[in-house]
Order: sequence, then structure tokens, then C-alpha cells
Amino acid sequence: MTQTLEPVVTTGRTPQQRIDAWLEEFETALATLDIGRATNAFLTDSYWRDLTAFTWNIKTVEGHEQISDMLTARLADTCPSGFGTTEPATDDGDDVASAFISFETAVGRCEGHVRIRPDDNGVDKAWTLLTTMQELKGFEEKRGATRPLGAVHGSDPDTRSWAEKKADEERDLGRGTQPYVLVIGGGQGGIALGARLRQLGVPSIVVDRHDRPGDQWRKRYKSLCLHDPVWYDHLPYLPFPDNWPVFAPKDKIGDWLEFYTKVMEVPYWSRTTCLSAAYDETAGRWTVEIDRDGERMTLYPTQLVLATGMSGKPNIPTVPGQDVFAGEQHHSSQHPGPDDYAGKKVVVIGSNNSAHDICKALVDNGIDTTMVQRSSTHIVRSDSFREIALGGLYSEEAVQSGMTTKKADLTLASLPYRIMHEFQIPIYDQIREKDKDFYDRLEKAGFKLDCGDDDSGLFMKYLRRGSGYYIDVGASELIANGTIKLVQGQLDHLTENTVVLADGTELEADVVVYATGFGSMNGWAADLMGQEVADRVGKVWGLGSDTTKDPGPWEGELRNMWKPTQQPGLWFHGGNLHQSRHYSLYLALQLKARYEGLDTPVYGLGEVHHLS
Amino acid sequence: MTQTLEPVVTTGRTPQQRIDAWLEEFETALATLDIGRATNAFLTDSYWRDLTAFTWNIKTVEGHEQISDMLTARLADTCPSGFGTTEPATDDGDDVASAFISFETAVGRCEGHVRIRPDDNGVDKAWTLLTTMQELKGFEEKRGATRPLGAVHGSDPDTRSWAEKKADEERDLGRGTQPYVLVIGGGQGGIALGARLRQLGVPSIVVDRHDRPGDQWRKRYKSLCLHDPVWYDHLPYLPFPDNWPVFAPKDKIGDWLEFYTKVMEVPYWSRTTCLSAAYDETAGRWTVEIDRDGERMTLYPTQLVLATGMSGKPNIPTVPGQDVFAGEQHHSSQHPGPDDYAGKKVVVIGSNNSAHDICKALVDNGIDTTMVQRSSTHIVRSDSFREIALGGLYSEEAVQSGMTTKKADLTLASLPYRIMHEFQIPIYDQIREKDKDFYDRLEKAGFKLDCGDDDSGLFMKYLRRGSGYYIDVGASELIANGTIKLVQGQLDHLTENTVVLADGTELEADVVVYATGFGSMNGWAADLMGQEVADRVGKVWGLGSDTTKDPGPWEGELRNMWKPTQQPGLWFHGGNLHQSRHYSLYLALQLKARYEGLDTPVYGLGEVHHLS
Repeated sequence: MTQTLEPVVTTGRTPQQRIDAWLEEFETALATLDIGRATNAFLTDSYWRDLTAFTWNIKTVEGHEQISDMLTARLADTCPSGFGTTEPATDDGDDVASAFISFETAVGRCEGHVRIRPDDNGVDKAWTLLTTMQELKGFEEKRGATRPLGAVHGSDPDTRSWAEKKADEERDLGRGTQPYVLVIGGGQGGIALGARLRQLGVPSIVVDRHDRPGDQWRKRYKSLCLHDPVWYDHLPYLPFPDNWPVFAPKDKIGDWLEFYTKVMEVPYWSRTTCLSAAYDETAGRWTVEIDRDGERMTLYPTQLVLATGMSGKPNIPTVPGQDVFAGEQHHSSQHPGPDDYAGKKVVVIGSNNSAHDICKALVDNGIDTTMVQRSSTHIVRSDSFREIALGGLYSEEAVQSGMTTKKADLTLASLPYRIMHEFQIPIYDQIREKDKDFYDRLEKAGFKLDCGDDDSGLFMKYLRRGSGYYIDVGASELIANGTIKLVQGQLDHLTENTVVLADGTELEADVVVYATGFGSMNGWAADLMGQEVADRVGKVWGLGSDTTKDPGPWEGELRNMWKPTQQPGLWFHGGNLHQSRHYSLYLALQLKARYEGLDTPVYGLGEVHHLS
Repeated sequence: MTQTLEPVVTTGRTPQQRIDAWLEEFETALATLDIGRATNAFLTDSYWRDLTAFTWNIKTVEGHEQISDMLTARLADTCPSGFGTTEPATDDGDDVASAFISFETAVGRCEGHVRIRPDDNGVDKAWTLLTTMQELKGFEEKRGATRPLGAVHGSDPDTRSWAEKKADEERDLGRGTQPYVLVIGGGQGGIALGARLRQLGVPSIVVDRHDRPGDQWRKRYKSLCLHDPVWYDHLPYLPFPDNWPVFAPKDKIGDWLEFYTKVMEVPYWSRTTCLSAAYDETAGRWTVEIDRDGERMTLYPTQLVLATGMSGKPNIPTVPGQDVFAGEQHHSSQHPGPDDYAGKKVVVIGSNNSAHDICKALVDNGIDTTMVQRSSTHIVRSDSFREIALGGLYSEEAVQSGMTTKKADLTLASLPYRIMHEFQIPIYDQIREKDKDFYDRLEKAGFKLDCGDDDSGLFMKYLRRGSGYYIDVGASELIANGTIKLVQGQLDHLTENTVVLADGTELEADVVVYATGFGSMNGWAADLMGQEVADRVGKVWGLGSDTTKDPGPWEGELRNMWKPTQQPGLWFHGGNLHQSRHYSLYLALQLKARYEGLDTPVYGLGEVHHLS
């Protein structure tokens, strides 16, 4: 035990000295398999987030008891060693020192981040620790100095050109050679994962129902632009060039995804729909029926990844009169934009991102538009979000000050979900102070605002429920000044030409747009594999924070995302471009390890508390 | 005058102190318009290479007289100021100190490189100076912090989406709006220039005869891979990812070019042939007749750039019997690869890159192949070229040690052509020492080797004549071991089924491939604009080194490339990927300056000494 009764004074020691001392103590404890001593290197209130380095899982253990339990299960196997900092440690204030770290395990090279703070006795202990697998030893990606030669120098018995080999491989895949991984859904999630699996040499196919990569974006309403800024959105391997717009228009991001898919040589089947998938327990593989551009095929992948969009299936409320309404009705995901609606009256049900975007494009085209707000919404102005919430990690200023995408991702990942709201609340306090006039004008126009149950704002709402907010790019002003008409209330029924709310308000309508959100991703699983499999897996997304639309108990990580589920061979992948980039690494490494037959004992497989 | 009789000792002063002192002296001389003093800051044997910063030209002035002449013409206008180093100066040995520098002129922000060395009196003087324009003040590209927002935040009277605006612009270009620049030829040269012009907001069109961008590579013989390694080949703005092959196969580079064109939003017309171009002196613009996918159109660009390939038009020797030969004859640029020639006898005339590549692919496929060597050839093994000739600037090791593509390009550009061979000769001495056994085996097989007239090797041959070498990726071994049959001699005539050489040697042939090189780029100008314009412009490429195929007098820079020519409004652009990347910047800035109506007085417009 290193704990002493003599306080170890932090003053007079550099952050680097403090971190080095902690790492040495921690590594010694791990090396001697002294779980008590290793656990005691953490504060009582502490968090160890592991992304597949120790747990073969995406898992946060909290406090001494959970840390000790995890180490008991996993330490002997993991053999961690070689801990060090990858750049100088920093003083974060309040006696906290932090550093990016690297280390090895028996099977992998790892990186992470640690924050230490003196305990009551003045001894530095870990407050937060992030450990992440970065590559598997012996299965390193061929990049930089190990990139392929391309040309064959000298004589080669195989005289096929690169293009001929690629064409032969494409012809054979799914017929002669079965994919080890089948990724269903080819948006940014499926494409980023496909690129990583290609790099790792795991035979895979990404299938998607659209005509070509990028159509997932192209087919949305025409005014759509990314709401996240470019620095947050890079895909793996090939960052956007520095002339790329801050908020890319949908067609431009669509073109990039198509380009990226081809350049990264991702095996990608367009115009392909999955009809059913059944898991064969004995064979340990799936039987997947697909329709590939009119041809029925059966695939037998070992691993199946659902990357069909974290938003899940469109959610349209059932109300009386939908059958008698004479106009057009559609879900926001089917909304084409304003061009066909000149002179018509449009009622948009909902008040989140899509509702705002759609309403703005409609009134910009002079169309009579009413938004029906059913419950309070979190609004944050795009500029404020960019500057105050993201700027430190993802911005031009961050790039100029030496912040890389990887360091930003690790920093963001280093904040344990249990206490993330504590970091977020001051950000939104600051934003509400800065934009007070803006919020006042919105409320005066009758718009119901919230900032999350605990005032923790957008990012926590996104993680907890994936909905309930709008990043304002101008629609709020149009609501405040009455250009977009705003009505509060619940949908009661439709008549031939009106929308009627519960309080009797009647809104004339030629078109009704249901911007009413999406169900859980496991709705896709139910469609493909049946309700039994969907129920075995349970709800996807959300933390168990016991806030609105995110019922407890606390689960500590996003449910079922990027990690093993209760259904062998079934995985979920998705989220925004940031998540598609960062978490695709850990999912790809888990799949690669299984493909290569490595032992991958999962610690802390998630229990199912909610079906959807 | 700073020259003193007291030697200034260089020892005891850091390279940085020496460079700083030189820059201060030089800047003071320039600021006071003291041309004698500025000239005296150079050694007697010295070289000032300017890429459009002082001369609005690509121009090297050599020695005091030329430097003084240039400054007399250009100093007052240029107003250079703010000289400083952009990173620590280095000690290059032999009392030479060097540094990357930056400065401003009246119209631009500039960078460069300087090497200083003590003169006989021990006073540091410039040995080589490179000055390059990097951007025009007030016309900076929108990148990084100034990149476009993409989304329109707030209301916009223009409700068109990005895709709609782009489609409208494409419909209008060449009809409603005339391009200021027309780039003829859409390989890497035209595409890189098109991307820069797009970024600079110069209305331009790149036209190309192929079906789609990249076909310039796709349509070549199937075994073709780049002979230059990836670090040398990046295009502007969007470098290759770090999993890109060292030597990219032709179809892969074709795909990259196609998507690069789209991502960079280069206005690019495929399936478009230029029929004629005539310059209207009065209007100061061209009338260009084109066939765009079957439609005849007339364009009126102010500037015309020929980017049709530095290799120029295919060169096929005329010999008796070509009309009676019963087999197939074609130029190497039309050669499809070996697939159709099983069981046939192929005779390849020539012994440079294409001849070797074509012969290797033929014998790899078991086809009876004879190479006819007409004159000696420079051979350098790919590995040796990569390691010894390029490695310091363009390699993974260079990247790891902090070398950027920009610094590498400036370093390469900083070596004056007049003395470049002095830097090259030791490299090839080293290569010939290392690969002695290889060269001995080749000579033993009857292959005639050279290393350039002055043993300066591949790079000088490329600059002087653009031909005469093979970067060996395996064909040489096949020649040494007799798999590729080798015959020496000159082509005399063809019979129905043989190739007959001047010494009477008769080679049976079903197929004759003329790997006999290309003419000067101004052959394209003659085709489009008539011989008169071609003759006014004169020979393109080559330095005037008075070595084989590069007749004097010395011209100091590549003839007519990337700079004003004797024909107003006519420019030549091209070369390998490195040149397409680097020199497209200076060409684009020259075009942008003219588009914006800046004064661009050209110093030292090249005289015409050779017609082709």
C-alpha cells in the first residue's frame, strides 16, 4: 500500500512529475496483480472508462468496488505494461493534473487519458481514467511506412492489374467468399466501419437500399446542411480539406461519402435490401436473405452490424382522421423540401431539428407554415454551440493550437457519462447568459423552452434520448417574429382539410408533415430478425439517466452501441459523424479480433432493462 | 556598401544569427532602393530564382549583372518588406547557412529560401535565393478560418440549395457566363490548376476529350503504375491518405482524379474536343471552337492554358514498309496491354519507360517479345531512386522528421537549374556504386547504358528532354536474363511480317509497338492555333543545357512552362504530379492577378531560340 498518513504536497511538483509518479504506482500494482493496490490508486469517487482495452467491451466502472471487480475478472489476462505519457502533462486547475497516456496489453497497443487529484491525505489518485485499444499486435493496419507498394516490382505470376483483381474480388464476394461481417446500412456509420474493416483485412460487405453511397443525405429535404461543424465531422483516414464548408450541404456530404467509399475501396452493395436474418447457434453464423438490385441472394456472415441510423424507424403517431385527410401526409424523413407546396398550407407536427429546418425552408419560399409544438424543446444557437460547446476541441482555433482530431476524440471520451452533465451545465449557463435576449424573444412568441431536465443542454439530450433539440440556424428568429406560425398542443384528429388539436384548435392544412421522431434502433432488428431477437437485445441508445425518455437504471454507457449485445453476432453502430469516426475503431477491432480467432472474453455484458 | 576589408568570421555565430544579419542587410538595401547594395548582398556566382514574386514570371537571374538588371526593372514596383525566417536556420556545412523565409510585396504574401556563404572577405553573401508568391493580398483563398459557412444561417432571399446553385452555375457557364480561363486537357495538370482557379474564384472550364476525369490514366496499358512515389504525388488541398500505395496503379489514380475533380468542384467538361482557337488582338480574348459531346460551341476565354501533357504529341517514325506490314502497329500511348497478344511475336521499338513497362507485361504473360534499343538509356532502380534521389524530401522518413510537402517543394525549387546537376551527380555516383552488379549484368546482356551527358542522371534528363530513362521496376532483370529479347539497331524498314534493322537484322513480328516518344507540347498549339502561333511561342520544355536533345543557348528555366509566352493569353501547364501540384500555384496566381486587373509587368519574357 502506498497510502501514507503524511500528505504528499502537490505544490512544487510539476503535473508531469505527478502523473509519472501515479503511472509508476499504478503500473507496479497491475504488474504484481495487486488488485487492492491498483484499486487504491483511484479516488473513492472515480471512473474508469474502457474501450475494449481491458474489457473487450465499451464499459465504465465506477468507484472502488466496480474497479476491483473488473480487475479481478480481467487483469491477469490483459497484462498491461509500458505506461507513459504521450505528451507533457497539464495542470487543469483545482489540483487536477491530466495527461494523454499510452500502454500495451498482451494483445494490443493502447492509448488513453488520466486525470489525477489528491485525496484527503494529499495522495494523488485517479479521478478519471480512459483506456482504449488502438491496434492489435500482429494485425496492424498497413499505413505510412507499411502502406502497400501498389506496383508489383519484379515478376509476378499473377499478371492481373489492380483493377482486374478488384473486379475479380467483387465478383467473388458473397458468392465464392462469404463476408465475415455484414454491415446493414451504408450511411456515414456503415461507410466508416467498412473502411476500417477493409484496412484491417476483414472480409466484409456494406449493403444499402439506396442507388448510391451518399443518397442517405441527398434524398433528404433540400435545405439540409450538417448541424455539426466540419472539425467534428472528419471520417477516418481522410480528413476533409481545409476549404470544406463549416456546415456541409447535404448533397456535398453525399458526394464526399460516395468518393470516400470508392477511394477507401469499401465493398459496398447499393440497391440492396435485407429481407430477413436468422442466427444459427450451432454454426455460429447468420443466414441473411437479401435482394440485390432485383436478385435474391443468401449471405452467411458470422457478424451482423446494424448501421441503419441511430434514429431508428420513423415514428408516425396514429390519430383518427388520417384516412379521411384529403391532402398529403408524410414523415419528416420523407419530406422533399418546399418546391411542390407553393400556395399550400403546411402544418408541421413537432419542434425539433427537422421540424425547424423544414418550416424555415417552407416560409423562405413564401409558404404558409404552422409548427405544432407538443412539448418543450431545447434550442441552442449554432454560433454559440460552435464557440462555447465545441470550440475547445473542434474548431479552427483548436486546430491552430495543436489539437488533433484524435486528441479531441480521446478528450471527449475521457469524460465519464456519469458526471458529464457536470461539465455541460456551466456551458449552457454561459450560453443562456450570452443569448438571453434571443431566448426571451422566443418565449415571448409562445415557444416552450427547456435545457434538459438538469439544464445540461444539447449533448446530454443527444446521448440520453437522441432528440428534443434544435441547433438554431435561423428558424427561431422566424418563430419569434411570427413568420413561422406557432401553435402549442397535442394532436387530436384530422378532418378532410384540417388538423385538430386536443384543445379544439383547428388548423387548415393541405399538407401535414410528421416531424415526430424515430423509434429505437432495435425496431430494425425486430423487422429483420423477429421480435424475439429484438427483445433479447433490448433498447438501443440512452444511458439510463432516469431523465425524460431515458429511464433508469443507470447503465453507464450507450445501450448496445459498438459493443457485444445479448444476441451473439449482432452489433449496433451509428450516430453522428464524430461517433461514426471514433467508435468505428473499437467496433472494428472487436470484429477483427474475433475474425482472427483471438480470445475476447467480454466483461460486463449489458443487461436488458427496457425492450425498446 | 557593407563590404569591409575586415573578414566577418562565421564561426561563433549561429546560422540563425548569420541569416538574420543577411536578411536585415538585404531588406535595408531593398527598402532604400539601393540596387548596388542589394546586388552586393549576393556572391559573384549566385542565383536568384523568382516564381512570380518580383518578376511576374518564372525566372532565374544569375550573377550580379542579371540581378541588378532585374532589380532595376522591378524593385520600385515590388516594394518588398518584412523579411524573416519561418523556421530556425540550419547549418548546411561548408560554411553554408540556409533558411526558409517569408516576406511581403506591394501585392502579395511571399515565401522563399536562402543559402548564404562567406565571400572571399568573409562577408556572408547569398549563394542562392528563391522568392515565391504565395497569395495575393485582398484575394486570399477561403480556407481554414475563412472557409465558407456552407449552410445559410438566417433567412436568404436565394432559396436554392447548394446543389441547385451548382447546377444553375453549370448550365450557365460557357453560355451566359464566359470562362476567363479555358484549360485544355484534364489530366492531373488541368485538374490541379482547375482546383486552384476554383478556389481563387476565377471563372474557368477544364475541357477534356475523355469520357470522365481519370481516363487519361485508365486508358493506358493495364500494368501501368506511377513511377514516382506517393509523397511526391499529392495534389493541392487534399493529400492522399496514409494508406495510399507507394506507387498507385493507373486505375486507382484515375479514380482519385475523378473524385478530386468533383470534391473540389472543378468545372470540368468531359467528352469535349477543341477544334480551333484564334486570338483576337483587339478584344484581347480567344475564340475557341469546341465539340462538347456532339454539340458545337464557341467559347471566348481571355486566357488559354494548354495542359495536354508535357509529353506532347505521339512521335511515330516513318519507315518504308509500314503500309505492307500485315500485323498490328501502334504507338505506345495506344498500347492496351498484353491480353490480346497471346501466341504472337511482338517487337517494341524503343527502350525508355513505356517500352520497358510494355515489354515486361508482355513477357509476364508468356508472349515472345523483342526490344529494339536505338540509343543508350539511363536506368535507375526504383528502390535506389526512391531512397537516394527522393528520400530526403519525399518519403515516409522525411514526413516523420517534419518535412512537409510545401517545404519539400520549396527546397527542390530553391536549387537553381544552372547548378542542379552538381547536386545530382553525386547522387547517381552513389546509385551506380550501390547497384554496380545490376548495371554490370545489364551491360553484359548488351544493353547500352548512360547516365546523362554529364552523369547527372534521371532528374536532369527529365528537365532537359523529358525522355531517355527507365525507372526499373523489374524489366531490367528480364532483359539481363534474356526473357525480354534485346536487339541493338536502327529501324530500316518493315516487310509483311518482319521488322528489318539497318544492319540487316530481321525480326519476325505480328505486332510492332512504337515506344518512340513524343514531340514538343507546341505541336498541340500548332494543331489548334496554326503553325504561326506555335512558331511564335517556340519550343516548350527543356533548359537550353546544350546536352543531347536540349540545345542551347542556356535559358535558365523550363521553356514556356507556367509563365507568360510570346503569344498573349497562351500558357502551358503540365508535367508530373509534383509539378502539377507546385507550379499550378504560380500559374493560378498569374491568372488571378490578370482576372482582377492587377498590373502584372513581366520581367524577362523568354526569347524563342527553337521552334520545336
